[in-house]
Amino acid sequence: QIRDFLNQQNISDVAELINEYPDFEAQIIANMAIHRAASVFKILDFSAQKTVIRELPPFKTAELLNELPADDRTDFLEELPKEVIRDLIKLLDPEERKITLSLLGYPEDSVGRLMTPDYVYVYAHYTVEEVFATIRKFAKNSETVDVLYVINEKEELIDDIRIRDVILAAPDKQISELIDGRVIALNVNDDQEYASQVFKMNNRVALPVTDENNVLLGIVTIDDMLWVANEEYSEDMQKIGGTEALDEPYLDIPLLKLIRKRVGWLIVLFIGEMFTATAMGYFENEIAKATVLALFVPLIISSGGNSGSQASTLIIQAMALGEITLSEWWRVMRRELVSGFLLGCILGLIGFLRIVAWHSFAPGLYGEHYIMIGLTVGFSLIGVVLWGSLSGSMLPMLLKKLGADPATSSAPFVATLVDVTGLVIYFSVAYMMLEGLLL
Amino acid sequence: QIRDFLNQQNISDVAELINEYPDFEAQIIANMAIHRAASVFKILDFSAQKTVIRELPPFKTAELLNELPADDRTDFLEELPKEVIRDLIKLLDPEERKITLSLLGYPEDSVGRLMTPDYVYVYAHYTVEEVFATIRKFAKNSETVDVLYVINEKEELIDDIRIRDVILAAPDKQISELIDGRVIALNVNDDQEYASQVFKMNNRVALPVTDENNVLLGIVTIDDMLWVANEEYSEDMQKIGGTEALDEPYLDIPLLKLIRKRVGWLIVLFIGEMFTATAMGYFENEIAKATVLALFVPLIISSGGNSGSQASTLIIQAMALGEITLSEWWRVMRRELVSGFLLGCILGLIGFLRIVAWHSFAPGLYGEHYIMIGLTVGFSLIGVVLWGSLSGSMLPMLLKKLGADPATSSAPFVATLVDVTGLVIYFSVAYMMLEGLLL
Ligand SMILES: [Mg+2]
Ligand SMILES: [Mg+2]
Ligand SMILES: [Mg+2]
Ligand SMILES: [Mg+2]
Ligand SMILES: [Mg+2]
Ligand SMILES: [Mg+2]
Ligand SMILES: [Mg+2]
Ligand SMILES: [Mg+2]
Ligand SMILES: [Mg+2]
Ligand SMILES: [Mg+2]
Ligand SMILES: [Mg+2]
Ligand SMILES: [Mg+2]
Ligand SMILES: [Mg+2]
Repeated sequence: QIRDFLNQQNISDVAELINEYPDFEAQIIANMAIHRAASVFKILDFSAQKTVIRELPPFKTAELLNELPADDRTDFLEELPKEVIRDLIKLLDPEERKITLSLLGYPEDSVGRLMTPDYVYVYAHYTVEEVFATIRKFAKNSETVDVLYVINEKEELIDDIRIRDVILAAPDKQISELIDGRVIALNVNDDQEYASQVFKMNNRVALPVTDENNVLLGIVTIDDMLWVANEEYSEDMQKIGGTEALDEPYLDIPLLKLIRKRVGWLIVLFIGEMFTATAMGYFENEIAKATVLALFVPLIISSGGNSGSQASTLIIQAMALGEITLSEWWRVMRRELVSGFLLGCILGLIGFLRIVAWHSFAPGLYGEHYIMIGLTVGFSLIGVVLWGSLSGSMLPMLLKKLGADPATSSAPFVATLVDVTGLVIYFSVAYMMLEGLLL
Repeated sequence: QIRDFLNQQNISDVAELINEYPDFEAQIIANMAIHRAASVFKILDFSAQKTVIRELPPFKTAELLNELPADDRTDFLEELPKEVIRDLIKLLDPEERKITLSLLGYPEDSVGRLMTPDYVYVYAHYTVEEVFATIRKFAKNSETVDVLYVINEKEELIDDIRIRDVILAAPDKQISELIDGRVIALNVNDDQEYASQVFKMNNRVALPVTDENNVLLGIVTIDDMLWVANEEYSEDMQKIGGTEALDEPYLDIPLLKLIRKRVGWLIVLFIGEMFTATAMGYFENEIAKATVLALFVPLIISSGGNSGSQASTLIIQAMALGEITLSEWWRVMRRELVSGFLLGCILGLIGFLRIVAWHSFAPGLYGEHYIMIGLTVGFSLIGVVLWGSLSGSMLPMLLKKLGADPATSSAPFVATLVDVTGLVIYFSVAYMMLEGLLL
């Protein structure tokens, strides 16, 4: 009865059901045909997957893990602790175990980890009729039949061919007559982000994966690219905000782990920001003489931080999508020089006008030298915004050059950097403008 | 010769060639078979597409636009000014023109804009053999044959069926025996972000699009979801950084337009940040009496901004992927209350220790009341970080509730909000702690 109900639902509906009734997770999975259970399992959150595996009876776990497509199995296992992986792999049939061990051997976030060895391959001398016979024989275990792979006796990849072209051809035609020799393949060590760009630029629902010798190892299917895109989105957003990548949904991650992922960067930024206290300490006498200077400190340094976080997110985004390469740093710098200067002038002008305007409402506010104070604020803003744009744009490129993730140059990181230098710029300008007047 | 060379390349290679030699864009496109030219055109950047259309002779433009799949045509046209769209639509054949006008009639970023009317449909009473005949007849003009759509005489969607299931069935089997009645369809007015989540959760390379009466209007294919993902990624990243969405690659957007996209938010934030000057103005006497207080202003307010930008990016990311719904605001708030408080305590402790430590190196630095100053800084940090986490997490949810894009609560926006309130918190704590001592 519950079985019938579950089998009539779409897998996404069952997954939603599980999210709504987390206590019945394992029960729901156990009451489905194993093939559908596997389809649901693979779209569950990692934390839900763990619960299912923990609560299912061992024989059911074994059945489920063996039924799971190789790529989804890797995706689940790779997040687990080493001992657990070892125990679960023991549950696999020898053949599946071998595949899983080899997939887990590829680097994290590489194409190898996304790959499945279940595809349909044919030889160039096959006729269309033989191809259909091959499909009927192997389709059951294949991830897709929408694209077939043509290989030679050395298992080297010759071409891929769409099922549509096979269907449209006469039954006695040879595959060699249908293929065009143009083939796009991923290397097993390619980064998943790169793979997603290749999919985007090539009209294929699956891409073959080869090793250095062009031997076909497996395929990657486009549906997995949507998961990659979500993963990379989350990672970059979280890093941009100054958190370590969570790798788990916000509400699922244990609270202490959430705090641990956040506290590291917060402390680093805090220590960096301590230099503002040091910098302000150097100018303590100036502040004591002209308290009015202190009033504009937050305004000025935050404007630098804002322009810096604009610049850094623009560059991180553009580099992630391959719109900018490192060799174009000089074009980026030129653009930021001009934008930073103009944006600084606009803010500087507003800042100057604001001080003059407030003075005319309340003449005592900034004292007799209000024009010079206005100019100090205005010129500082030009310098700070320009500096923010420049450092915000160059930092992600520098990080990439050094092999780090550009997204590490988060908005708070850039803001902190610019806060410290912004103070130095501000008080230096103040010194020049107000020496002999207030200072 | 150049024709032969171009026809041997993958479309992604031709696109790269065009990006490398922008002066030959139109020439390269003109020298390709029209079908391949369309395939290249659709993966070009918008700015490259515009150049091609501008430089091609009118008859070639007409040929290209007519050849372009309907969804890719919409994607290109929708970005153009109204007058240009009108002129280009005149170049289309009557049939294509009708389709394009109807697709452009759907709201921006809706499924309707991504849809193509070129799919293969069959009736439930068809036999497998008849299905193959239908495919052979219509596949040429179909976006995909990997999934076929089963409709009734009223053009209502009954089910979708994978080509694999058709291939595996006996030729005389009826489609009605192969389908399971479970079907996932998108509504034509659904948002593209939602569509991308539906694709992610359902193992399909194409999804049918229906209207309110379940009439099949077209299909959306999964390859377009990768473009949607990239679009949404760029939009959110840029907004998070405090820029309007550029809608064009960073290096392609005209410099003045880039500045215009940035200056709006910068000015808004600048005006918001002016309240810091007002707030500090209220405490000018306190600063004059105890200049030492001014030294820690940047440190304290930026810590609030940092924890706020952590919280806001975490929530924006989680809402974008559907991990958090608005109804869960209370769970989010509870988490942020605890995290904010603990994070604040950690930073507060470090701040306190830092002041005490510096005092023991240079006893004159913070005067005799250094302990009280340290406590002021420490307690302020707890309050500011807690407030930053709370407002950073609630703001995106509030914006969504109000129908705005949560990503508008950018890191700089939250930082500005917290800067102003942070100052009030800091000086209020200082007042309580230091009254009678320094103030
Ligand atoms: Mg992975
Ligand atoms: Mg997973
Ligand atoms: Mg080929
Ligand atoms: Mg897969
Ligand atoms: Mg990344
Ligand atoms: Mg990555
Ligand atoms: Mg700041
Ligand atoms: Mg669009
Ligand atoms: Mg486009
Ligand atoms: Mg169905
Ligand atoms: Mg398309
Ligand atoms: Mg969005
Ligand atoms: Mg959107």
